[in-house]
This record gives sequence, C-alpha cells and structure tokens, in this order.
Amino acid sequence: MVTLVENAIMNAPTSSTHLLPAIAPRDVPQVLIDALKARFGERCSTAQIVREQHGRDESAYTTVPPPAAVVFAESTTDVADTVKLASQYSVPLIPFGVGSSLEGHLLAIQGGISIDVSRMSKLLRVNADDLTVTVQPGVTRKQLNDAIKNTGLFFPIDPGADASIGGMSATRASGTNAVRYGTMRENVLALEVVTASGEVIRTGTRAKKSAAGYDLTRLMVGSEGTLGVITEITLRLYPLPEAISAAVCSFPSIEAAVRTTIQVIQMGIPIARVELIDHNTVRMVNAHSKLGLREEPMLLMEFHGSPASVKEQAETVQDLASEQGGQAFEWASTPEARTKLWAARHNAYFAAIQSKPGCRAISTDTCVPISRLADCLLDSVAEADASGIPYFLVGHVGDGNFHFGYLIDPDKPQEREIAEALNHKLVKRALQLEGTCTGEHGVGLHKMDFLLAETGGGAVAMMRAIKHALDPKNIMNPGKIFSY
Amino acid sequence: MVTLVENAIMNAPTSSTHLLPAIAPRDVPQVLIDALKARFGERCSTAQIVREQHGRDESAYTTVPPPAAVVFAESTTDVADTVKLASQYSVPLIPFGVGSSLEGHLLAIQGGISIDVSRMSKLLRVNADDLTVTVQPGVTRKQLNDAIKNTGLFFPIDPGADASIGGMSATRASGTNAVRYGTMRENVLALEVVTASGEVIRTGTRAKKSAAGYDLTRLMVGSEGTLGVITEITLRLYPLPEAISAAVCSFPSIEAAVRTTIQVIQMGIPIARVELIDHNTVRMVNAHSKLGLREEPMLLMEFHGSPASVKEQAETVQDLASEQGGQAFEWASTPEARTKLWAARHNAYFAAIQSKPGCRAISTDTCVPISRLADCLLDSVAEADASGIPYFLVGHVGDGNFHFGYLIDPDKPQEREIAEALNHKLVKRALQLEGTCTGEHGVGLHKMDFLLAETGGGAVAMMRAIKHALDPKNIMNPGKIFSY
Repeated sequence: MVTLVENAIMNAPTSSTHLLPAIAPRDVPQVLIDALKARFGERCSTAQIVREQHGRDESAYTTVPPPAAVVFAESTTDVADTVKLASQYSVPLIPFGVGSSLEGHLLAIQGGISIDVSRMSKLLRVNADDLTVTVQPGVTRKQLNDAIKNTGLFFPIDPGADASIGGMSATRASGTNAVRYGTMRENVLALEVVTASGEVIRTGTRAKKSAAGYDLTRLMVGSEGTLGVITEITLRLYPLPEAISAAVCSFPSIEAAVRTTIQVIQMGIPIARVELIDHNTVRMVNAHSKLGLREEPMLLMEFHGSPASVKEQAETVQDLASEQGGQAFEWASTPEARTKLWAARHNAYFAAIQSKPGCRAISTDTCVPISRLADCLLDSVAEADASGIPYFLVGHVGDGNFHFGYLIDPDKPQEREIAEALNHKLVKRALQLEGTCTGEHGVGLHKMDFLLAETGGGAVAMMRAIKHALDPKNIMNPGKIFSY
Repeated sequence: MVTLVENAIMNAPTSSTHLLPAIAPRDVPQVLIDALKARFGERCSTAQIVREQHGRDESAYTTVPPPAAVVFAESTTDVADTVKLASQYSVPLIPFGVGSSLEGHLLAIQGGISIDVSRMSKLLRVNADDLTVTVQPGVTRKQLNDAIKNTGLFFPIDPGADASIGGMSATRASGTNAVRYGTMRENVLALEVVTASGEVIRTGTRAKKSAAGYDLTRLMVGSEGTLGVITEITLRLYPLPEAISAAVCSFPSIEAAVRTTIQVIQMGIPIARVELIDHNTVRMVNAHSKLGLREEPMLLMEFHGSPASVKEQAETVQDLASEQGGQAFEWASTPEARTKLWAARHNAYFAAIQSKPGCRAISTDTCVPISRLADCLLDSVAEADASGIPYFLVGHVGDGNFHFGYLIDPDKPQEREIAEALNHKLVKRALQLEGTCTGEHGVGLHKMDFLLAETGGGAVAMMRAIKHALDPKNIMNPGKIFSY
C-alpha cells in the first residue's frame, strides 16, 4: 500500500514560483456550453472580454487562456445546476467573487468554467439580537457593513480589498482587525455549500459553539473553492465599540516598532489594530497622496472599548512605544480624523504600485509566532534592501503577519527571479521560526511548494485524500493548493 | 451513482437513546494480543479490572464488553506502533485519556484495543513569549495550569472535569470560560496526529493564524478519535488578568437570570464567565455542602481585565441584573473568596448525583443563539418539572449552552425512557431555534440521530466520506459520531 507520505512525495507539486504548472487544460465540450446557454441564456457568457476578466486576479501571474465560459449565478440552484452539468462532462469549475485574489486562485489553469457569484449579493437575514448575519457569497464586506450600520453592529474582518464574503471565506482571509476579532476561521458560524456532485449541504448552526461532529465549516473555510462552492455564509457580528480611538506613532527603526508590538501582545492589551508601515512605504504614500508624513517606520493603531478602557489601553501603549523611542504620536477619535490618520495604510498598495509605472507586486504573506517577528522581519528587510528591487512593507504585526510587495517589471524575468528568491528566503526563515507561509492570502498556485515544506508530506497527503473523497472527478478549482 | 444524501439515509444511525447499536464486536485475534505484549510487555494489559476501567466513561450507558486489551502508550512511537499492529488485523482502537466523556466515546462497542495516553503527560515546550505551550495528550488542564503558573500565563478552557488536553481536543470541549476565550476550536494551534495507517503527521504551526491549505487542525479537533490519535497539542495561552473579580447574584426566576445574560452578551461586555444554576441545584448543593445559599436561580460571574475595566464591567452588569430583579450580589476578588463563592457551581454535579443514591445522570448539551436562550430553556424546565424526574440545571448561558442532568435509577427503564423523551423534546426545540444538539460534549454514541437531524444527511454523508478516505478499515474509534 502506498502510504500518505509516499503518495505526497510522488505527487509533489513543482510550483511556488510564478511559473505555471505544465498541465494541459481539459477539454470543454461544446455540448456543455450549449447546455449552459440553454439553462442560463445571457447569464452564460462566452464573450472574450468577459472570459478574460474572469481568468485573472491580482496576482503577478502572466496570463493563461481564460475559462471557456462564465456563468453568472443568481441563486444556489443556479450554482447547483452549473456544477451538475460540469460534473457530467468532468469539466473544471472556478468560483469567482470580485477577483481580488493575490495567489492565482482564479486562473483557469486546467481550463473550465468560471462561476461568478457576484450577483448573489443579498443579505438574507440580520439577527441583530444574536449578533449574527446570513449573506450570499457575493456580498462584499463594505456592502455588509453599510447594510447593518443602523443595527449598532459591525463585521470586523478587513483584508484591505472590498472582497466578497464568499471569497474571504474560501481563502480564510483576515486583515487589520484580526488581532482582536480573529479571522474568517473564528467568524464563520455556518455555511451552505454546493458539493462537487451538485448537492446542497449545510454545515454549522447559528449557535456560537458546537461539538456536533466534524467541523465541516472550518474545512470549507480556506479550501479555496477546491471542495465546493460556498453559497451562503452565516457570520458573527460585534457591537460597535462605545469608543474608538486611533493613533499613529513614528519609530527610529522597524525594530523599535516591532518590539513595541511584541510587548503590547505579550501584555494582553486588547488592541483592535496594530499595523506596521516601513519608511519606504511612507515615502511612496507621501509622493502619491501629497502628504507630509514623517518618513520613518510607523505603527498605526486602533483601540476599541468603553471610553475609560480605550484611554487606559492607549496610555499603556504610548508608554511602551516611548520606551522604544516612538514619537510624534497623533490621535484621532472621530471617524473623519481616523480615516485621515489611516490614509497612509489605506493608500499603501496603490501608492507603491504607482511608484513604478507598469509594475506588478509579488506579495509575501508569512506569519510567525509573535516573539519571532523581529528576527523574521529584520533579516528579510536587509535582504530586500540589498537586492535593489523596490518594495513596500506593511504588516498586521500584532498577529506576526506582514507583507513585502516586491515591485517588478513583469517583462523583466530577472526581476521576477530576484523577487521570487527573496520570497523563498523569507518563507524558509518563517518556517524555521515555526511560522506559516501564508497568514491570510491562501495557497492558490503560488505557495504549493511552500505548503509542502511547511506541513510535510503527510498533511498534504491527507488534504489530497479528502479532496479525492469529496471531488473524485477533480472538477472544483483543480490544481490549486496542491497539484492533484 | 448513490448521492451523499441517499447514502446518509441508507446508513442512518438508530441511536440517540442509551440503547446500544446492535453491531457485533469484531474479533481481536490472539496473535495481535501476543504481538502487543511482545512490543509493550506489562504496558499491554489484559487484566479484567484494567479492561473494565477502560470500557466505560461518565455516560449513562449500561456496560458493554470491555476492550480486549489496554496499551499504555508513553510516546508517539508507542501509539504509531499500536495503530500499525491493529491496522494489520483491522482491529478497532479507542483512545483513552482520563475517561471523563459523557457520551459513550470510550465504549468498545465494536470490540478492540484501548490505547491509554495518560502516561504521555509531559509539557514539551512552554513558549511564554509567544503565549503558546506544547503538551502531550495525557496532560490534564489542571496539571497544565499548575505547571505554567510562574509564567504569568494561563490556559482558560475549563470543562469542569480535570480532563486531558487530548480528550478535550478530541471532543472540542469548552466550559465556563468559553464565553470570553473561545473553545478548543479557537485555542488549539497545531497538532501531531497518528493517522489510521500509523503515520505521524503535523497540522498547523505556532503562528496565530494561517491560510495554508485545509484546516486539518480543526478537522481533528472534535473528531472524537475517529480520524486518528492526537499525540501532541500546541495551545494558545493568555496573560493572567491583572484583576479578577467574581460575583454571584440571585434572581426571582430563571427567566430573569437568562434575560440579564442576554443583555450582557448583546452589549458586548467582555465577561469571562457567566454560569446559571437553577434553584433545584442550589438546594442540592446546600444539602450536600451544608451551605446556606438562597435557594433561587443564581448567576455566577467572573470579570477579567485591568482593575478599572473589571470595575466598569461589574458595575454595568450589576445594573442590568438589578433591572431584572437580581439581588443579594456577593463579590469576591481574592482567589480564596472566589473559590468559596463558586462552590455551588463546582459542587453541582456531585451534589446532584448524591441527592439520589445510585442514580446516573443523563446529560443534555444543547446550545442556541443567545436571543433564543430563554425560549429554549423555559419550556424545557416546565417539561422537566412536569415529568417527576429529578434534575439539576447548570449552564454556560453566555454562550447559549446549558445542561440538564436528569437523575435516573439505571435499573428503572421507565425513568430512562422519560429522561430520554425530555432530552428529545429539548433537542428538537433547540434545533428549531437554530441551535445545536451538542455545545461541548460531542456526539459519541448518544447523539448520532440528533446529529443527522441537525445537519441533514448531506453533511453527515460528507463526514462519512472523509472518515472512509482517512480510515478505510474503520479502525479508529468506530461507531462513534455515526454508525459506519
């Protein structure tokens, strides 16, 4: 019998660069296209521009041939019917929300059909008394928060992009508020999923906790569309804090900023956000947004709670920061002032991209135990500085998670190679420090080798066994997380 | 092709009473016993008393024939070798920690070998700077907290019994602190697991969050020994709060106590514990421990934080309680005073059991969305009162989770029937209110029908497909969660 580990090694993926795996796209028979068109009419599109729009994402991959068609689903039944038809012809299906993946999740590397759920954008039920909401997968996080703002509640997960809740669930997203409120892992209570055979199943309930069998909810969260299509999500909500206070603080070095963060976490201060921006990135933001921020490493922080508790947290953190040489503290309590204060963080990505016209960003996503953060970050900064590749650096440092964005000219293979080499060194370092190759972006196409290095063959083989059991025809977003 | 749902219905379990499923135990060949004895010497026991001790738990099941042998594992290799030998002969294996299951998890209903991990009781690594600890599965929660008390950290999950961390992981346990700190689901970061083929795999890392592939950690947490044997667990720890304050408060009715709790949660007060005890149970505790507590429904609460924040939380809660007629508030801040104040809660189970000599408790474990808690609880109290069966009632009400313990004479089938009927009505009600049949005890043998009713056939069929893929010989604690 072939063991799990042997099986994993035999099937070891060969990616983790932006070279695409050499798997021939599967045939999409015309009879399937015809059947989809008969079922969905104009909601099944084979227009080149629509297909191309659905065949790429925010990753740095070069274009691959787009999906053969795009189905715009408007209901769970639409999704189930699409899956059943695709299953009949063993044709791959790639769920699509808003297209904000950074890891190649949406590329039709084995061909197939894109199933766009962005029109499934209804808030199905707000249960304010239970602090829960049930949404369709195409609802975006901003849409959700706008829709519930009169309930006194909010949904905290903020990955930056105005991503769809379906996509955020599928990639186990998190972002700036995760240090206090957790990730999608902690905040999805229940799901409706269309399985690979087109059946509709439900996982979880609206109860806050449960010990009822295997945790299928959390198996689906982070499965990147490879085990089914998420068609309904029940989320936890939180009361809007009575008081919110934001602060920025400049530091003489990245190390000083990071050491402050480590102390905040080790003391158990319930900080709601603590984001790092390096001096490079501040400079890019100043240039982009015509701001006059101090071009030094910066922590952006937010405190949630009662007025007294917010004041207490902020004072403690300011003391810790001062000990590390932090200065130029600025505070904001009104929403407008907070937005202004956070401009540097919100604009970082676009400021960086625009600092090098025509560039693409190769994004890293390591996450390490908090005490290892300085070790992991500082050596990688030195390597990036030495490489000559421009980069931005931002981080959800309270969770030990940060992102380099190496800015490369997509037409210069050498720049790509240098950036990939930097990324490899960083991931290797993070794994040695007992961290993970991806804190929140997911594996997609880009981190398959890293996943194997991180978990060892046994865990990947177990994932593969689950995939094979639940999707024997390998039609659900095939070739992502692991090559099949 | 048989669909997942059809498959589930064809294989629908017939339990959820304390009638054991009629599956013949599998043969345990002497050659396997001999091989285990050769490998483990005296650490493989076939003594009747040892086998009987490992063939029961705290559930109300009548005795079934015990396992054919008990292996006392002292290392991961011991576990792996035992699994490999058992696999060779397709013999069931039942992991055993301290034996505190309430749902029949430990019964050898299909025969087999008990694998006792209680001697795997080492703290492998305390990473205080990262707020993590790595332990072997036989470490109990009290042992863990004793061992780390000089670090300024603690592990909050408290299911009542001094359960093993392995068992708590396997059943997704929680308890009194979960309202603030989450359950084992939120607090297990990484695992080492011996799979059904005897391979050793690792899931997760010490990073606080990760998006690296399928969430195998959370698939194993709550899998009740049916997918592998957990041999190492990395847990999150928390800084000991600067201040802790405990309070008890009596209420004119259960409804008043529950309404207070609902308001506390809806306001987002970060209460660390909020436990309900009904007047019946207070009476039993008074009799058992010779106390003079007011024989009224009672909330026991605990607040964690800075001194100012604890004071603020407590004042707000006291105001809310007073509005509902809560009175006789008592406060305690020192550890000794808190322990005394919480005596009623800690003694409830034993006081109840001793109130009816020779009885067994049939325990319920429903959990509902917080706004449904009063509806779920009050009707069930009325039914229990009308039944004539004595009971105790305690609850982690902040999570919407509570337990009736129906006290039955195990020799009177009629009492058992009445208690099971009460439980059925309660679960049916909880499911209609969008809750779960088990908040923290797990499914085991007792809740298989309920699981099917809760999730529908599709989800159970998916669980079964995963089980079949990862344990094709069905040797890992077979017949629990679902009949195979």
